[in-house]
Amino acid sequence: MNLLKTTKILLVTEYDGSRYHGFQWQDGQPSIQGELEKALSRLTGERRRVMSASRTDAGVHARSQVVSFRTGSKLATDSFVSGLNHYLPKDIAVKAAYRMNNDFNVRREAISREYSYYILNRPTRSPIVEGFSYLVPGELDVKAMNQAGSTLVGEHDFASFAARNGVSPKSTVRHVFRALVEREGEMVIFNITANSFLMHQVRNTIGALIRVGQGKMTIDEFNSILEAREPALAGPTAPACGLCLKRVNYPEPLENYDEDL
Amino acid sequence: MNLLKTTKILLVTEYDGSRYHGFQWQDGQPSIQGELEKALSRLTGERRRVMSASRTDAGVHARSQVVSFRTGSKLATDSFVSGLNHYLPKDIAVKAAYRMNNDFNVRREAISREYSYYILNRPTRSPIVEGFSYLVPGELDVKAMNQAGSTLVGEHDFASFAARNGVSPKSTVRHVFRALVEREGEMVIFNITANSFLMHQVRNTIGALIRVGQGKMTIDEFNSILEAREPALAGPTAPACGLCLKRVNYPEPLENYDEDL
Repeated sequence: MNLLKTTKILLVTEYDGSRYHGFQWQDGQPSIQGELEKALSRLTGERRRVMSASRTDAGVHARSQVVSFRTGSKLATDSFVSGLNHYLPKDIAVKAAYRMNNDFNVRREAISREYSYYILNRPTRSPIVEGFSYLVPGELDVKAMNQAGSTLVGEHDFASFAARNGVSPKSTVRHVFRALVEREGEMVIFNITANSFLMHQVRNTIGALIRVGQGKMTIDEFNSILEAREPALAGPTAPACGLCLKRVNYPEPLENYDEDL
Repeated sequence: MNLLKTTKILLVTEYDGSRYHGFQWQDGQPSIQGELEKALSRLTGERRRVMSASRTDAGVHARSQVVSFRTGSKLATDSFVSGLNHYLPKDIAVKAAYRMNNDFNVRREAISREYSYYILNRPTRSPIVEGFSYLVPGELDVKAMNQAGSTLVGEHDFASFAARNGVSPKSTVRHVFRALVEREGEMVIFNITANSFLMHQVRNTIGALIRVGQGKMTIDEFNSILEAREPALAGPTAPACGLCLKRVNYPEPLENYDEDL
């Protein structure tokens, strides 16, 4: 294969992760990556590997996951949007496509990821938002949750918030740029932005923050979890259905990299 | 059956109407009413008719539909919430229950109904909000839509907005208290409150308002539809999936009627 004859396409995708075993293909289980690669091969006839900017776990949703692949196809950039949306299942969609320089690395060049975790805070389950939120009945002290969460901002070793049996990363230091807990009606929303996240980091963080909100853990105790740097000390891991990848940020807006423009 | 020995229960319900042929039981098709009556009979052993405050069409959702039934059961009022939520399918839930005076008529005593219609205004489909919105790509002049919609406020003969082959009501005069079109990010939301609605009235209204937003109909033309009083002149009927019954209002908050309090 002559790499000079291929170009790189970036896609902004949205998905309802409920049916999938995560972004990444594994053990032949349904995955977002697998569906994207299948649709791509139906559209272009090529078998290409699709890479993501942020690996989402089984059941996690995305409003703007960024993915990339190389292609030798001469299709117009916009045709990747309409063409892939035609072949993809209803729970995965492409929102935009950009043609990039071949060296653009969708994961390494991302400077931050924004995740939101949705807690449905009311006594009864909700047929309308159920699949995209975690039901926590009973009072939640959102102010205390926000105060505890704000202590995460900055560069820290987040080992205590990592999955126990996650693939061990070289470093567990991450930079959190923003962490905010706020109420919007029946919903309590946790927004967190970081350069990148450890496996299960957001779900372990909100698991601990819920305990703070329920008065089962003080803000000091929450802080001491961070300081302990003991894998999987934080938790419990909140369910995947409440988590959504909201945005991946690059040094410049994606359209600035588009070579077609 | 001795009516003196029964009491009346009011329920506030929420549902994802996608799978149902409307609130009302018809021709053995799946209906919200049918599911509520089935769950009720499993909970209490009684076969009771469930009435709704606002009949929702096939595929229409509800965040707060109010329904009522008589029961001879001695269950505590709160147990109707937990008990019915146990037996109901995942796409229907009970949010609250109140014990009312036996003469309380859930439909006749409601003073207004609030509906929202959600238009997803972006180029591509959305796996996350798809089932609860109608995709309208292309520019929409929301200001013009809102201006046209605001002419509906007041007491008018809404015959032009009624379904052609709907069951003909005695009168097609309705009182609209509020009609507002506004943008929230990718969503254009139409909120309308009236004493009650004709069959397909909201969906025919938003169908015409979308034409205004697309520049295919002037505000004057929209007004002349109202004045024409010709059944089914307005439209096209927008899809049911975008419509949601948001609230049913009574002269006083429901808890004020609760005889248990």
